[in-house]
Amino acid sequence: MSINLSDMKSYVAAVQEDVVKWRRHLHENPELSFEEAETSQFVYDTLMTFDGLEVTRPTKTSVLAKLKGSHLGPVLGIRADMDALPINEENAFEFTSKTPGKMHACGHDGHTAMLLGTAKILTQLKDQIHGEVRFIFQHAEELFPGGAQQMVDAGVLEGVEAVIGIHLWSPLEIGKIAVRPGPFMAASDAFHISIQGKGGHAAQPHFTIDPVVIAAQVVTNLQHIVSRNFDPLDPLVLSITQFHAGTAHNIIPEKVEMAGTVRSFKPELRNEVPMHMERIIKGVTEAHGASYEFSYEKGYAAVINDAAVTEKVRTALVETFGEDVVVEGEQQMGGEDFSAYQQVIPGSFFYVGAGNADKGIVYPHHHPKFTIDEDALPIGVESFVNIVLKTMGA
Amino acid sequence: MSINLSDMKSYVAAVQEDVVKWRRHLHENPELSFEEAETSQFVYDTLMTFDGLEVTRPTKTSVLAKLKGSHLGPVLGIRADMDALPINEENAFEFTSKTPGKMHACGHDGHTAMLLGTAKILTQLKDQIHGEVRFIFQHAEELFPGGAQQMVDAGVLEGVEAVIGIHLWSPLEIGKIAVRPGPFMAASDAFHISIQGKGGHAAQPHFTIDPVVIAAQVVTNLQHIVSRNFDPLDPLVLSITQFHAGTAHNIIPEKVEMAGTVRSFKPELRNEVPMHMERIIKGVTEAHGASYEFSYEKGYAAVINDAAVTEKVRTALVETFGEDVVVEGEQQMGGEDFSAYQQVIPGSFFYVGAGNADKGIVYPHHHPKFTIDEDALPIGVESFVNIVLKTMGA
Amino acid sequence: MSINLSDMKSYVAAVQEDVVKWRRHLHENPELSFEEAETSQFVYDTLMTFDGLEVTRPTKTSVLAKLKGSHLGPVLGIRADMDALPINEENAFEFTSKTPGKMHACGHDGHTAMLLGTAKILTQLKDQIHGEVRFIFQHAEELFPGGAQQMVDAGVLEGVEAVIGIHLWSPLEIGKIAVRPGPFMAASDAFHISIQGKGGHAAQPHFTIDPVVIAAQVVTNLQHIVSRNFDPLDPLVLSITQFHAGTAHNIIPEKVEMAGTVRSFKPELRNEVPMHMERIIKGVTEAHGASYEFSYEKGYAAVINDAAVTEKVRTALVETFGEDVVVEGEQQMGGEDFSAYQQVIPGSFFYVGAGNADKGIVYPHHHPKFTIDEDALPIGVESFVNIVLKTMGA
Amino acid sequence: MSINLSDMKSYVAAVQEDVVKWRRHLHENPELSFEEAETSQFVYDTLMTFDGLEVTRPTKTSVLAKLKGSHLGPVLGIRADMDALPINEENAFEFTSKTPGKMHACGHDGHTAMLLGTAKILTQLKDQIHGEVRFIFQHAEELFPGGAQQMVDAGVLEGVEAVIGIHLWSPLEIGKIAVRPGPFMAASDAFHISIQGKGGHAAQPHFTIDPVVIAAQVVTNLQHIVSRNFDPLDPLVLSITQFHAGTAHNIIPEKVEMAGTVRSFKPELRNEVPMHMERIIKGVTEAHGASYEFSYEKGYAAVINDAAVTEKVRTALVETFGEDVVVEGEQQMGGEDFSAYQQVIPGSFFYVGAGNADKGIVYPHHHPKFTIDEDALPIGVESFVNIVLKTMGA
Repeated sequence: MSINLSDMKSYVAAVQEDVVKWRRHLHENPELSFEEAETSQFVYDTLMTFDGLEVTRPTKTSVLAKLKGSHLGPVLGIRADMDALPINEENAFEFTSKTPGKMHACGHDGHTAMLLGTAKILTQLKDQIHGEVRFIFQHAEELFPGGAQQMVDAGVLEGVEAVIGIHLWSPLEIGKIAVRPGPFMAASDAFHISIQGKGGHAAQPHFTIDPVVIAAQVVTNLQHIVSRNFDPLDPLVLSITQFHAGTAHNIIPEKVEMAGTVRSFKPELRNEVPMHMERIIKGVTEAHGASYEFSYEKGYAAVINDAAVTEKVRTALVETFGEDVVVEGEQQMGGEDFSAYQQVIPGSFFYVGAGNADKGIVYPHHHPKFTIDEDALPIGVESFVNIVLKTMGA
Repeated sequence: MSINLSDMKSYVAAVQEDVVKWRRHLHENPELSFEEAETSQFVYDTLMTFDGLEVTRPTKTSVLAKLKGSHLGPVLGIRADMDALPINEENAFEFTSKTPGKMHACGHDGHTAMLLGTAKILTQLKDQIHGEVRFIFQHAEELFPGGAQQMVDAGVLEGVEAVIGIHLWSPLEIGKIAVRPGPFMAASDAFHISIQGKGGHAAQPHFTIDPVVIAAQVVTNLQHIVSRNFDPLDPLVLSITQFHAGTAHNIIPEKVEMAGTVRSFKPELRNEVPMHMERIIKGVTEAHGASYEFSYEKGYAAVINDAAVTEKVRTALVETFGEDVVVEGEQQMGGEDFSAYQQVIPGSFFYVGAGNADKGIVYPHHHPKFTIDEDALPIGVESFVNIVLKTMGA
Repeated sequence: MSINLSDMKSYVAAVQEDVVKWRRHLHENPELSFEEAETSQFVYDTLMTFDGLEVTRPTKTSVLAKLKGSHLGPVLGIRADMDALPINEENAFEFTSKTPGKMHACGHDGHTAMLLGTAKILTQLKDQIHGEVRFIFQHAEELFPGGAQQMVDAGVLEGVEAVIGIHLWSPLEIGKIAVRPGPFMAASDAFHISIQGKGGHAAQPHFTIDPVVIAAQVVTNLQHIVSRNFDPLDPLVLSITQFHAGTAHNIIPEKVEMAGTVRSFKPELRNEVPMHMERIIKGVTEAHGASYEFSYEKGYAAVINDAAVTEKVRTALVETFGEDVVVEGEQQMGGEDFSAYQQVIPGSFFYVGAGNADKGIVYPHHHPKFTIDEDALPIGVESFVNIVLKTMGA
Repeated sequence: MSINLSDMKSYVAAVQEDVVKWRRHLHENPELSFEEAETSQFVYDTLMTFDGLEVTRPTKTSVLAKLKGSHLGPVLGIRADMDALPINEENAFEFTSKTPGKMHACGHDGHTAMLLGTAKILTQLKDQIHGEVRFIFQHAEELFPGGAQQMVDAGVLEGVEAVIGIHLWSPLEIGKIAVRPGPFMAASDAFHISIQGKGGHAAQPHFTIDPVVIAAQVVTNLQHIVSRNFDPLDPLVLSITQFHAGTAHNIIPEKVEMAGTVRSFKPELRNEVPMHMERIIKGVTEAHGASYEFSYEKGYAAVINDAAVTEKVRTALVETFGEDVVVEGEQQMGGEDFSAYQQVIPGSFFYVGAGNADKGIVYPHHHPKFTIDEDALPIGVESFVNIVLKTMGA
């Protein structure tokens, strides 16, 4: 027996209320990266109410659920991330965060709820499934080194043939789904720069090595990396996001601490950019008799969507929603640790539109007023379910 | 009856032990600016043990003592400051600060002890004095808006004709006294700059107005004020001592907070420099679509020694110590709120050498290992006493 | 009657010697943009030796030749550019430039020779042609405003359905041909900045407004446009290539003159970049009390290859040379006035590999040692002829 | 016999017409530094019309005249400089420069005329002079390495005990004379910086090392030398006055050439500043992978007026003109090769006011509209004569 599209929609409709409720519960109770104790317990408990899942805890705050279809076939992973952000919510919902300073400001509450809804439906359709669906409820996407790598290390991908993931995306209007083969989200690296000068009295700069003016020059000289040093055809971002120095208005401080991030797509840039950075930092600090420390930490790799998997996803989505809904996703300089899975097996990550200007849902991700149009939740569920059934069906 | 120089030296010798004891007591018990409760009580109590003083409390933590000479004449003010600094002492004396995080690291303990010793001697020599000596034990020299202005506001200068003050000076070797007519210590102003950009994701600089790169440009552009905009013959310092922005490596912050100080001698520079600063801050922030707030607070005025008073001081000191001891003081970019008195009446501020490389007394003022050669204390007392007697004697 | 590929190769072989000879003649006699008097006369005279061409002079130094095929059909334009560069050749060939300071350093000599060869062949194959081939020998590609626009204005595209053009490309190895639909070569704009300060004696900077330090700040602040202000996913180059100020070591000059270029693909960037530039120039000059003049001249538009025409070109080339030869061209930030034709009708521009490391042919275009592997010439001729015959054949 | 002040004034009055006439002749016939052929011949010829001078030519374009007094005594040198500047005069006098592009725009025409007038008077007063007066008509003050050093090398100071010199000074109003012991005019050094990058196509900055952005950073970083690296109490100027790079808007140039000047008073700064400069240039160029050449040429030393000679000059001037006329000169960052004499013997250089706002004589030295109030000429003559007679009289 096989189900058709309109059947599918009724399955989705049947879980919609639950999905919204779960999402609101999670939204109200945000937990930071690596601290998702109650969140993961909630996911675990909810999954245990469905039939036929094998539910485990790969790490302290993550959950893995395996659903073996009635028929033999490959293993498909579906991933949702569950962590919140250290942001103070400025929305006034019934389900506004109850924890000051913490907020689901990136939509992971929705991701988790959608994957729960997907699991609920698919447990009812075991006989449609050829192979195994592995539901990966991942912790700590927001904080390097990220939960994805820990999940991989814990073996969640063993035997998995491909992995898919969704991001609810507020810059994309509700009703659209964006897929893209190849480079999709950038590699995201972090750096720290410490400029060591020589402190002293602010009235006697000549007895000091003023690290503030030197660090300011480092900042302006580092702009050359993007503007002059690399191929303008290779997207590259270098942002210095932290700059801290000084405690008193009449004391030239000893040192300046800076930090920031680099985003790129080409793997070789991740090796070359820090070399250029260090050459500039070294030159400018030596120019003024100061010294420096520089560390560069490679963070999440770029999300590079596998062409074949992405084509299957696109086909399933077009069949489900029509040509108009499925658009070509635009490259993003933002990062995602979904790439950790893609380093091991083929995968495809795609966006489900969650913005809605008519409803005032216009705030960017990580904004204190960020939210999603909850009508995106059933679209995400329907996407997941159809991709599974269309690729793992008979 | 008049006393001669060698008599004078025996008077000083007689109080030397007390002065050292008082200084060590104060050193052991430092109190911060505006918090000199026990210090001022100790001064008050000590003064009360001398004969013939009229002792009052002009403000909560200061002390004023009036000594009327036996003969009519003008009123001369002598000032000592009493406050300590928020520095953790790194010396290992018997009398090291007992309060962690607080330290007499600028010699005010010595100033106070010397003025007490001076009062003790002069109360014994009332019949030598034509006029009144006013002992001004001032609080809060280290912290703007300073105790001096409060003392002036409290009326301590009423009827006073001239004022003198000493700084024990570790860069000057023991045995030297430095006087200088005219501009001596710089005016000291403070400023605060806030650069308001538009925060956002570090991967999407084009959706933000990055205040870090803009503030870095403000810092480098502000260098022009000293290097290009003002007469190289007018000493001027502009130090940006604080620069704070950002909390996360992947978030471009909303704003940068900066602060610093300006030092100058000419009064017109104190009006022109902030105009130049604001023009630069405004131009650079507008160049990048950001906005700013800028405040400039005039701090202590420059110490400008009155020519006539300084000549009297120099003459008295040369007569007391000889030509070799009294040297021409060098201008300093550091500030002193002694200038608050000089705004009202003529005054002269001078340095008594307190450094001694042979004894390892080489650390600069405000250093955790700062100290003074205590042999400077009787020199300071002898200076004060002789200036009084030579200018207010028959 | 139709000819097959191997027939085609013999036609090409038959003109190869001529093409090389023509190219060497042109190489030896370079003429600068808009001054191609002898070059165009040589082209005219050569074309007149072929049968069946209608040859005209659309502008003073350009040539147009029309070849009407035996059969009705559309009009296809083929363009070659003919001008040389103000570069002093450093090659030691038998046919090295005879004019000091002028050189065919971009391969236009080859382009012209290839198009002559193409015309010679096609005049022999009139009966294979359905429609008209229009041979466009364009002047002045190297110098804005460019000859292409003048050709368009002179009506050379009247009735033309599509246009194709080749660039011999030394970074691409001999034996490869690179085609690419969509954005291929960047728009190329020019700007001029004049910073007006106030000159004066170098010893008295405070009486001047030093335009050198201000212009230096303008240069560093302009780096933000690429590094911060525009989407890192939109390729953008801003190069300040000229900076001139000052005549004496002791005189601060009145003004600084700067110039440079901007390269981009998206039309909206050509409007937004100059607005950002002016905001920065205005802000920084106002920051320092100077004034400015800024002009921005839109140069050649981006070469955007028409998808359909490019697909036909690619197909013809693959059929002629095989899959291995025809590669996907990489986007270039360099500009080409071939875009002037594409603003009017669909067109496709492609590269024929002309580099050869084994022969030491490695110098970039515009280099004094630039040359081409002359074996690329018959490849270019074969490309042109086959594209014509395969698209305009029966 | 001795002459009194009013006699003196009549001597001066008697030569005034000549002095003005000579000055105008020289003004009309300006010659550049080291090219003063006709000027020096004119001086020579004029001096030969006076009685009792021993006139020689120490160098090709200078003149030395010795006047032995009737009595034994020391030798006093009086120096005037004679060269004009490469400036096109914009004044409309009867005696405007007849040579386009050359102009006496610094008052040296007046200096020469005053010294001629002084010689004419003193030759009439030989019997008043104890010792020898040596009239030094020096060439080439305006152009490094300067004529003064050549005069010294030629032995003009042999046996000379002290030297004096005047500058007519338009910023000082007519009727004032400014003297100052100690540092008076700054040392003047020149530097050249060449930044070697790697040129290339402006559309491909990543294949180049763009020397323009690097040199701009060098300029901004060099501001730190004055603003941060040296004692704010030591006057210092660093001006980058020349910056040249680039010839075409689409070519990133190979190199940038810069030049400028450094002004200071303390000899140690002339050693330390170039070390700091080179450290900064090296650091910044290495930061960006470029290289540099840096040369620093010490120019004229600082004019440091001898205290004793200056006191004699001041006394003579006060006796001649009264207290109100003689003011304390202000330090100047401008240079003068009068210092070359002061490196060998004590000397004093002073200013005679030559500006007059009421007459519109307000333009600064080296301005195309510069002029002097000719009423300053007799004041200069009277100054010279009285200094001679009062210091070398009986």
